[in-house]
Formats: sequence, C-alpha cells, structure tokens
Amino acid sequence: MEQKYSVCLDIGGTKILGAIFDSKKQIVYRLKKRTTEDGSSSQNVEDTIISVVDQMISEFGIKKSQIKAIAAGAPGVIDQEKGIVLTSPNLPWKDYDIATPIRKKFGAPFYIGNDVNVGVLGEYKYGAGKGYKNIVGLFVGTGMGGGLILDGKLFTGNGFKAAEYGHMILVPDGPLCNCGQRGCLEALSSKQGMSNFIRQQIARGRDSMMAEGVSEGVFKSKLLKKSLKAHDAVAVEAVDRACYYLAIAAGNLVNTFSPEIVIFGGGVIEACGDYFMERIVSQVDRYCMPSIRDTVKFEKAALGDDSILYGALSMILDAK
Amino acid sequence: MEQKYSVCLDIGGTKILGAIFDSKKQIVYRLKKRTTEDGSSSQNVEDTIISVVDQMISEFGIKKSQIKAIAAGAPGVIDQEKGIVLTSPNLPWKDYDIATPIRKKFGAPFYIGNDVNVGVLGEYKYGAGKGYKNIVGLFVGTGMGGGLILDGKLFTGNGFKAAEYGHMILVPDGPLCNCGQRGCLEALSSKQGMSNFIRQQIARGRDSMMAEGVSEGVFKSKLLKKSLKAHDAVAVEAVDRACYYLAIAAGNLVNTFSPEIVIFGGGVIEACGDYFMERIVSQVDRYCMPSIRDTVKFEKAALGDDSILYGALSMILDAK
Repeated sequence: MEQKYSVCLDIGGTKILGAIFDSKKQIVYRLKKRTTEDGSSSQNVEDTIISVVDQMISEFGIKKSQIKAIAAGAPGVIDQEKGIVLTSPNLPWKDYDIATPIRKKFGAPFYIGNDVNVGVLGEYKYGAGKGYKNIVGLFVGTGMGGGLILDGKLFTGNGFKAAEYGHMILVPDGPLCNCGQRGCLEALSSKQGMSNFIRQQIARGRDSMMAEGVSEGVFKSKLLKKSLKAHDAVAVEAVDRACYYLAIAAGNLVNTFSPEIVIFGGGVIEACGDYFMERIVSQVDRYCMPSIRDTVKFEKAALGDDSILYGALSMILDAK
Repeated sequence: MEQKYSVCLDIGGTKILGAIFDSKKQIVYRLKKRTTEDGSSSQNVEDTIISVVDQMISEFGIKKSQIKAIAAGAPGVIDQEKGIVLTSPNLPWKDYDIATPIRKKFGAPFYIGNDVNVGVLGEYKYGAGKGYKNIVGLFVGTGMGGGLILDGKLFTGNGFKAAEYGHMILVPDGPLCNCGQRGCLEALSSKQGMSNFIRQQIARGRDSMMAEGVSEGVFKSKLLKKSLKAHDAVAVEAVDRACYYLAIAAGNLVNTFSPEIVIFGGGVIEACGDYFMERIVSQVDRYCMPSIRDTVKFEKAALGDDSILYGALSMILDAK
C-alpha cells in the first residue's frame, strides 16, 4: 500500500505556510506563499490555497491519492464542523464554504479551524501542553488571540466564538481598541497596543529606535527584540506595560479556568519570549488565587511558528 | 417495590437547607437548621448534616432504605469525585472526607460539590439554563461565586478550582478584596464590595437608610431592596457602581466562553433582581464582541433559593 501524507496549512492575511507530514508526524516538505496577489477576492485566496497544495505535492513528488487529508488554521470565526469561514478580520471571506471546493479538487477530507485555536491544539498534542487536560493559550501578535483546551478537548463555545479574551476589559475607559471598545487586553498588550503607546511617546518628543517601525502601523517583532537588547527606554516601557497587563489577564484566566498550564505564543513571544516570560511570571502570582497558583505553570509555546501546522495535523489524525 | 426519595442539602456557613424530592422531582419535605451551635468543629457540622437528614426522613415518614441517595452543595473547593472538602471559607473543614461517614450512616450514595457549581447545575437541568449547552453563572452574595456548564457538562478545571472569576481583576489597584488582591469583581460588586462603598460614603458624612445595616459587616439583601425602593441615594449609587462592573465582567466572560446564556443568581439577585438586571443588560452590550452579543442571553436564576437543592438532585439522578 502506498504511504499516505497529511497536508497542513497556516493561512494568514499576508502569507500561507504549507507543510507535508509523513506518517511518522515529521515535516517532510514546506512551502510559503503570499496569500493573494491583490488581497481582494475570496476566489483568489482559494486559488492560492489550491496552488500551495498542488505545488507542494508536485515538488515533493506524491499523487493526490496519497493525501490522507488536508487541514488548515485561518483567522476568524470558523464553523469547524462544516468547514465554513463565518467571518474573518484578515481574509476576504464571509459565510464562505472553503471545504467543498478543496475536497472536490483533491478528493481528500478537509478540516479548518480558527488559527489560534488550532495552534493551541498543536501545542496540546505535540508541544508545551502535552499531557495536560486544561490549557489556556494566549497568543501575542498584531492582535491578541486565545485558544482553550478544556477537559482534554478544544473548547469553541456557542457558534465557534469562544476564547476572545483578547477583548477582556482590564482598564475601563482605557485606550481605544480595534474592536471599538476601550481598555481591552489587545489594546494594552498586543503589537497594536504597544505600537500605539510607542507612537504616543514619540509624539511627546522622546527618541526611540522604534520610531520608524511604528510610524505607519505596527512594528516588526525583530525590531522590538533589537530595541530591547539595546535597552531602548521607550521599547522597554512599552513591553513592561504590556507584561503588566498580560500578567493580570493571565491571572484572571487562571482563576476562571484553573488550568494546568498557560501557554504564551505568537510572533512577539517567538521573538522576545524570554524577556516577556520573565516579566509576566514574576508578576502573575499576585493575580492568581492562592489555592490555584501552586498548581499552574506558565510556559512559552514549544512549536514556535509551526504550532498551527501541528494543530492542523492533529485535526487530521484525530478526525472521526 | 417501595418508592425511593432523593435527599438534597444546601450547606451554608450559617444554615443548612434540606429537601426531600420524590421520584417526580417534586419537593415533598423541607427543613432548615443552623449549621453549628458554636461554629467551631468540623465534627459539629457533620452532626448537623446527619441530624437534618435524620429529622427529615423521620418527620416525612420514610425509612433509610427508601433513600435513593443524598447530595449536597457546600462552599469551598470540593473534590467531587471523592467527596472531600479540600478548603472552605465558611466551614471548619480542610481535606475533610465528609462522604464516608454520611454513606456509612445512611447506607446510601452521597455526592457533594461546590455550592455555586451545584446551583448552576440546578439552573442548567431545571431552571433558566434548560436546553443550553454553555452557561456562565454569576452569583452575587456576600462574595461573588461562579459556575460553568461547558459543552453540556459542569466544568471544574484542574483540582476542582475553576470558575473563580469573582476574583477577576477589573480595576488594577482598585479597592481591597477579601482575597488580598485589589480591584477584583468581588471587591466591587458583591455585598461586601457594596457594603464597603456605602460605609465609606457614610464616613464622609452622607445619610443613608443602610447606615446601621453596614455598620458591622455586610447588609441584608432585604434592606437593600427597601432602600432602593425608597430611592436612597447612597444605596442607588452603590448598586449602579456594582452593576457597571458586573456588566464589564459579564462582557469579559461572554467573550471568553461564547455561552448561550449568562445566569445571575444569589441572594442579592433573588431580592433585587429586576433592578440589577435592568442596569446590567442595558450596559453589557458595550462589552461583548459584536459577533457574540447577538447570540447570548442574560437572565435571572429561575429556581431562586432552591437552585442548589435542584443541582444536588441532578447529581443524584445523573450519577453513573
């Protein structure tokens, strides 16, 4: 019998990462492509997904019939059971059935879930969360994403909309968030929140290595890493402030879920994880209930940029 | 065959409520007793529990052999599987095996869980939460209790310590909470939080009908009801402030869980529910993510003071 392979995708607003896993759960081929040429139509993103899969199997040299299944994580609210993207902040899809065309094209099962949910699933099955039953994932990127493993299962709530604790309000009437509300964790501790803070400091006449990096949007994580290393005062203040609120949010989530572990991931943690973790862990004890804090761990994601790919793999291998 | 009855208990720090349910899930007998004579020893509380059950079955006129099972809700962290009270704020128990002596004495199964957890279970099975799969319970009393039904099951987290979102921090460095931390929901919106606020206003020389009621601790819910009816300015302000933070907390919890319903219960809601609900519901929309707020309901507990008794009944009827 010919060997079967799992094809996994991390679909982002700007790029799509693809990987082929063999039956030993090893990545044997990788590909990265821009999500769209023009960023406009949903057909376009579907075309890119198909071309990533097509190109990977052709370059790696396997046939369609050797695809065990295809699975993906993508930003937005996603009906995991039907494979429909209900809404997405970064993809041009609304109530879009992405599963049917992919299944038809490749003659294989297709699974899709929210990217951070799938990433936390990856950490649960193959990363920092291995062996635990209750996991809170907090992914710090441009926004602030969440994912929950509860009683050993991915928890998605009613309508697949759970784990939006990036919009937990920590400072009533605090800084404005992208969601229209004020004082959300995302507005305080994400790249957007930190960039806004840094931009305000620069507007007050302070110097920072990050000035150019935040002038037209959010900074790149690498620049933040470099600035922290150089002890750039504004960068240090922005991160200290972000970590203060991340510690409060983590404490609130620990008191809510009593998880065995809180896993911090995302681009910022991937680049500057040790710096963040030191500051979060040293403060979070204050915010956890005494009865709970002794039984909870705080760790960085172990799979880094691959957590969504591994989560997609687990969707394939655990499918019923 | 003789009919079997379920014996259910709501064990509080000051009183124990007992009820006998027949096989049609109707309460056929009730009893209320003070928890302890002196409030000191754990043996004493165990004696009271036994005497409540003894007295109920003797006065109602059934034999021990007609007890299907006994179940209870009690404050604290409780190992539901083993029937051990690990810690309790209001009962003199620590790592106390209450199940074994009760089982021995009555020759029947005995189940016990955290009171608010059991109360939310009651609302899920027989009250405001009937038919829903994901329920967030928020019980406003002397403290602030939580209970979660997730994917149709009571969620207790690692070590039975979940749902402590009464200690969600909403105002970093806000008013001091009983837990030692500052700015928790409990410190802002529970009877303790409201009583502290009222006491401060009175200390500033303001008049209030509630002055005597808060002079040596927390007010009684009936007094709050009376004061609201009389438009007592300090009482109105205390409740408006409590509802403001309850709305933020409810929004945070909705974004975290995407539940079908948030149920507000506890003594304060039982006494002044309409007043609170009007103020919470009119504000909570602001704090829920737009994608979630259209699919979530906010309601008062339907079983009132009996929700824990009904939850205990469901522990008996759903036991495997």
